[in-house]
Amino acid sequence: MRTVSVELGDRSYAIKIAPGLLKQLGQECARLKLGRRCAIITDSIVGKKYARPAFESLVLAGFEPLLIIIPAGEKSKRVSVVEKCFDRLAAHRLERKSFIVALGGGVVGDLAGFVAATYLRGIPFVQVPTTLLAQVDSSVGGKTGVNLQAGKNLVGAFYQPQLVLCDLDALKTLPNREYVSGLAEVIKYGVIYDAILFAQLERQLPKLLQREAATLAAVIARCCEIKANIVGQDETESDLRAILNFGHTIGHAIENSSGYGKFLHGEAIAIGQVAAAKLSQTILGLPSADAERIEQLFVAAGLPVRIKLNGKRREKLFAAMRLDKKVSGGEIKFVLAEKIGKVRFGCKVQSHHFSGMTDVLVTTRRPA
Amino acid sequence: MRTVSVELGDRSYAIKIAPGLLKQLGQECARLKLGRRCAIITDSIVGKKYARPAFESLVLAGFEPLLIIIPAGEKSKRVSVVEKCFDRLAAHRLERKSFIVALGGGVVGDLAGFVAATYLRGIPFVQVPTTLLAQVDSSVGGKTGVNLQAGKNLVGAFYQPQLVLCDLDALKTLPNREYVSGLAEVIKYGVIYDAILFAQLERQLPKLLQREAATLAAVIARCCEIKANIVGQDETESDLRAILNFGHTIGHAIENSSGYGKFLHGEAIAIGQVAAAKLSQTILGLPSADAERIEQLFVAAGLPVRIKLNGKRREKLFAAMRLDKKVSGGEIKFVLAEKIGKVRFGCKVQSHHFSGMTDVLVTTRRPA
Repeated sequence: MRTVSVELGDRSYAIKIAPGLLKQLGQECARLKLGRRCAIITDSIVGKKYARPAFESLVLAGFEPLLIIIPAGEKSKRVSVVEKCFDRLAAHRLERKSFIVALGGGVVGDLAGFVAATYLRGIPFVQVPTTLLAQVDSSVGGKTGVNLQAGKNLVGAFYQPQLVLCDLDALKTLPNREYVSGLAEVIKYGVIYDAILFAQLERQLPKLLQREAATLAAVIARCCEIKANIVGQDETESDLRAILNFGHTIGHAIENSSGYGKFLHGEAIAIGQVAAAKLSQTILGLPSADAERIEQLFVAAGLPVRIKLNGKRREKLFAAMRLDKKVSGGEIKFVLAEKIGKVRFGCKVQSHHFSGMTDVLVTTRRPA
Repeated sequence: MRTVSVELGDRSYAIKIAPGLLKQLGQECARLKLGRRCAIITDSIVGKKYARPAFESLVLAGFEPLLIIIPAGEKSKRVSVVEKCFDRLAAHRLERKSFIVALGGGVVGDLAGFVAATYLRGIPFVQVPTTLLAQVDSSVGGKTGVNLQAGKNLVGAFYQPQLVLCDLDALKTLPNREYVSGLAEVIKYGVIYDAILFAQLERQLPKLLQREAATLAAVIARCCEIKANIVGQDETESDLRAILNFGHTIGHAIENSSGYGKFLHGEAIAIGQVAAAKLSQTILGLPSADAERIEQLFVAAGLPVRIKLNGKRREKLFAAMRLDKKVSGGEIKFVLAEKIGKVRFGCKVQSHHFSGMTDVLVTTRRPA
């Protein structure tokens, strides 16, 4: 088993990475010395596979779990679903020492984390991410939240889990599109922080696409290490943590303006990162060879790197970008790359620079 | 002007107490170096009197305020109202440096504080409490939240304001019942922490009931000082802060089981404190003379000290108590008094002890 620690003083916690961890959920939770009552929050798809072993493992360890199943998909990540969870927790009489297990992908983790952050002004929670995306990104670092009509993740809290269990077995049965989507965040860590990881990904991509266990374990652990390192330096995104948003300003706007669900998060940020690389060439002088390698790695992974937009959808996309949380004083600030492995945050981008992205955000005259 | 500081490291802030502060809202906010956009959250009653001066003061200081008016009353303190506020903030494009002004009593402060704590994972907020209760209690200390069907304040966050402005002029026009309700929290500070304050309240009660400005200013400042002191030692209620809940376990259960709105918060906790004093006599040996003085001060202030319950309502009340946030491992823990000015938290109370409260929770055979 690999263990990565996230160092945040009295909010520090461990990320454990290994096959078969789900079966050990009960024992692992028992070590945390929490209350007996708890709740598993999962979704209708993940629940079918994993709710039972999770539930049984908790019961065997002496806990009294409640099972809450939300409909699968980004649409569940909203305030009214949070409220329904609150009502269930109250009916099951969860107390301050009770805890929540988030069992699923990013949607479940973000929602369940927010429920844990705000029920009784905060009760403990444990992340059991079952997708690649959640294992390398959303389950680490304490960002929790839900969407509003107006945009993604506009509501939430910084709230750290007590433990993260990445069960590598869960990745085996992941649908291909979802697995590949997770690779977009993996590649991001190479671009923003670690040129050696990036080169390793270029070499080992075939093994990764085959989900080769040893390669996967090492890569996930390295991604978690990078994220833990960044979050340990800047928990609430005052500055450095912003680099994790590379490709996300455009990515979120793509997700939002296309209607949630059309693009998976990883697909949207693949396009977003390639667009950000183009901006980086113009503004920070990112070498064109680096921009080319970035684009090629996404293509080789099977991720989209272009989006076609008619005038109206283009307008919608830019409107969504202006509503991004990272907007300050009306200005959109970008994370841009100097070279592979090194990015800068807070880069001002003028409207005329966006013309540099036209081969990524391709204008068409087709109706949307 | 009196200033009390709440010392919480990088979350420290000042409570300012003086007449005429509302007119200085804009200038005071300008000193905090926040963004230009902001929102005032107030209710339909307070809004009629104070929304305009607050709004104008902000505009004069160069801010762009949005005004959000929620229906007056405890019923507004719920998740769906929070969600409506989020949507308004997003439509007005509030950013991370934008801020929220909570203008009103406890309901507005708790709700607006929770909105501020969770919108964009937390934006700054300023409390402008307009009731006595809010000035001495709810606006200080960072407890924010809303109610569920199942109970009061079951959802929320610990989130500190940037500044609290207690305008003494706002108390002049407060309806008598509401003003007197606030005195219940004032008296609580004497019971839990300060025998000298308690004796002062006994002596100066007539002046307080006349809302004599100098007396009021001194008493409010002392209450805020006590609360700031307690919160400074234990921000998130791990231990000491629990003493602020003296009378609240029973008080909340009274509010909840009677339907919100029948009893004002202060009225419910007046009964709760007298009941807790009776329990304290049995369990901690609180001298009967002290219990008598406590009851007499509430009576002299014009607050209720008894509640009549038929069997069914009594049952409802005890069910509500078991759902209290302070329940741990299924046990209800009470704050009880050793003497006036000194309480102990985490006191276990057995069911048979409740018989000591029968002259406060009076059983009747009337239908509820």
